[in-house]
Amino acid sequence: MTLSKKPYKGTRDFFPEEKRIRDYMFSKMKETAELFAYESYDGPLLEEVELYKAKSGEELINDQIYSFNDRGERFVAIRPEMTPTVARMVAQVHREVSKPIRWYSIPNLYRYERPQKGRLREHWQFNVDVFGAPEVLGELEIIQLGIKLMQSFGANSNHFEILINDRAIVDKVFKELLKCSEDECYKLYKLVDRSKKLDKEKFTTQINETTLNDEAKLIFNEYLALNSIESLKNFLTKNSIDEKSIELISLDEKLKDLGLSDYVVFDPTIVRGLDYYTGIVFEIFDKNPENRRAICGGGSYANILKIFNEPSLPGVGFGLGDVTLKDFLKTHNLLPDFSSPKVDIILTTQDETGLNSLLNLAHSLRSNGISVFTQLEPLKIKKVFTLADKKGASFAALLGTQEIQDGLVQIKNLSTKDQKEFKIDSIDEIKGYLA
Amino acid sequence: MTLSKKPYKGTRDFFPEEKRIRDYMFSKMKETAELFAYESYDGPLLEEVELYKAKSGEELINDQIYSFNDRGERFVAIRPEMTPTVARMVAQVHREVSKPIRWYSIPNLYRYERPQKGRLREHWQFNVDVFGAPEVLGELEIIQLGIKLMQSFGANSNHFEILINDRAIVDKVFKELLKCSEDECYKLYKLVDRSKKLDKEKFTTQINETTLNDEAKLIFNEYLALNSIESLKNFLTKNSIDEKSIELISLDEKLKDLGLSDYVVFDPTIVRGLDYYTGIVFEIFDKNPENRRAICGGGSYANILKIFNEPSLPGVGFGLGDVTLKDFLKTHNLLPDFSSPKVDIILTTQDETGLNSLLNLAHSLRSNGISVFTQLEPLKIKKVFTLADKKGASFAALLGTQEIQDGLVQIKNLSTKDQKEFKIDSIDEIKGYLA
Repeated sequence: MTLSKKPYKGTRDFFPEEKRIRDYMFSKMKETAELFAYESYDGPLLEEVELYKAKSGEELINDQIYSFNDRGERFVAIRPEMTPTVARMVAQVHREVSKPIRWYSIPNLYRYERPQKGRLREHWQFNVDVFGAPEVLGELEIIQLGIKLMQSFGANSNHFEILINDRAIVDKVFKELLKCSEDECYKLYKLVDRSKKLDKEKFTTQINETTLNDEAKLIFNEYLALNSIESLKNFLTKNSIDEKSIELISLDEKLKDLGLSDYVVFDPTIVRGLDYYTGIVFEIFDKNPENRRAICGGGSYANILKIFNEPSLPGVGFGLGDVTLKDFLKTHNLLPDFSSPKVDIILTTQDETGLNSLLNLAHSLRSNGISVFTQLEPLKIKKVFTLADKKGASFAALLGTQEIQDGLVQIKNLSTKDQKEFKIDSIDEIKGYLA
Repeated sequence: MTLSKKPYKGTRDFFPEEKRIRDYMFSKMKETAELFAYESYDGPLLEEVELYKAKSGEELINDQIYSFNDRGERFVAIRPEMTPTVARMVAQVHREVSKPIRWYSIPNLYRYERPQKGRLREHWQFNVDVFGAPEVLGELEIIQLGIKLMQSFGANSNHFEILINDRAIVDKVFKELLKCSEDECYKLYKLVDRSKKLDKEKFTTQINETTLNDEAKLIFNEYLALNSIESLKNFLTKNSIDEKSIELISLDEKLKDLGLSDYVVFDPTIVRGLDYYTGIVFEIFDKNPENRRAICGGGSYANILKIFNEPSLPGVGFGLGDVTLKDFLKTHNLLPDFSSPKVDIILTTQDETGLNSLLNLAHSLRSNGISVFTQLEPLKIKKVFTLADKKGASFAALLGTQEIQDGLVQIKNLSTKDQKEFKIDSIDEIKGYLA
């Protein structure tokens, strides 16, 4: 049997071009996080399964997690998400460090699922979280950071929008207006969460299958029809819900203050699953009609530290995956060309007696911080420039038979086409020419 | 039961300070690899176990690997090393790309072992490999790159040395001089590989337990006593082995040419285990008598593509782990201080009415590429500078009650102690002051 050359199902080999694309996306994440003074952290790839159970309950564990017993009978999992890890880490230090705690990471995550567009078994996810920020300000900052990240790729409000909601509103609607029990609330949450994926007819059928009475159904449909903060405000007033109890209203004002309201759209169907969110929830959504999907999801969660018996500390954060981000950038033609690497100079010799000179020159240049691609076998001049182009070189050095004899080297600036001759040991002059 | 806050056994949480140290080490790896025009790649964290079996045989698989069946009954492992992955990837593309192929990566790897100094279950490893380089030149380049990396941390020949050997010599000694069978060779390899860990007496006992006759034992001991290329050359001549058949001899000359021979020491006991190496093998070794250990191991291997039924393509590479590197840097006091993060400016208000001004100023500064730490709750002036110091800020901005009323902000240069007042909306002027 021949050994397969393919990567394991649902994972990717990052050949240099793909890796440069990934590095580019990651560098923007890092730069953006650091603009906001978020500090980088990382945790282990393996965690004990208990941690995920405590945070998410049994459902996720049984379904999608890569879990196994280690040789010491510890039941462990490859991390499917970063939040439990960051919560575990914050739980260790939150008493000693000043608030807010602002952290980011770009971990790889594993979920066992059928590979499809935008979903793979292994992906990387930019995670930013702020813990212990004053009310609304954490949410504001995290959303600003999300917008700034997208802008750093050249995207603007033509390309993406932020769909936003507040679980406090949903809770009030379900519990106070519809008078739902916990059980009914749970079912409605599930229904709302799936509403974008269901067609209208199916959705209506499913509403009709709930225990809601006619009046409640009316209110529910009215809620689902809201499409702006203005309409939400009217809805709240009409149903005697105090605006001041809703953080989303004051967040919206702060976003307006910063001129960011163009990006943000109220969406009553955003609830972010049955997850641990407790307040504002949002998704960065692609506006391209052919790629209508979430690039990122996040929100605020008050109780994550409770699983460690720690006092609650409000957290806000989001996760943004590399697979969906790359799809987004490609769809909108925002991905620069990464087909070639970059190097300062390529050194070639046209005569094998030049090899020692070439190695010595490369060594000296590198000692001066100049990146060098060495062609280790003689190369005809006409092939030098094709190779230089493929290797992304800014300059090409030629060592022909005559040059080698005379201790010289020809260096060509590949963008200006200017060419100059140097003594091969005049490193300072060569360095000046390359600068 | 309370949930544990500790990371899984043998793994680490990278809190920001530790993460900055790791980032520093990785950035030097990246810079050095790119000085030599090596391109970055990455592969999946999981590979099918077959891949490791094909490369290393059953021993490693049973002992130390994290392996399990996925839900589709594929037998997979968390990568314990990168070489099989890079070989698999090279096997996919080597026919289409120009040689040499120069690649690097910094993957995290897992081995199930008892955690101890320098050995953890999860570590990161800098991997550099060159495929298809002409004889000796790949080895030369990889060793140069290793030296350059160590130099990039401020290390020199007082701190480390490269212990080097050539499996071709070992093979000739075992097979031609000692006339060993395959089986005996295998046992001797194991013995030589362990020789540094055994005390002299135990080692002698174990030699006596071999089937070597007295003459062979004499030659074997003579070989083990070699301590320089000169002594090796004499040994080869005495035993009628042609120097030209030994790559290490010509490698040594090239290293001399480049002025690198100070770093390199011939060591007859370096064989790099029973691994897949076929030619030159080496270790970067700490010279500190209290930390005598390998920081890095590598060498050349001719046959790795054969497991994919591909024609052989010579490869040379090394792996250098983050745990041992950090120990080395600490031992020699070569690790800079990473206790604080870095940020351009910290914005503080001494009066809560200043919050909106502060948020707006932060927003404008960030839009100009300036990194900003915002203190979201009013802070007394005397506490500002302690916080600024802790956050690694270069400047601190103060918004007191009077400034807020007047639309002004005080900005202090924290290194020169110079302080200046600005209109809060004069972003260009502020930007100029911060530059």
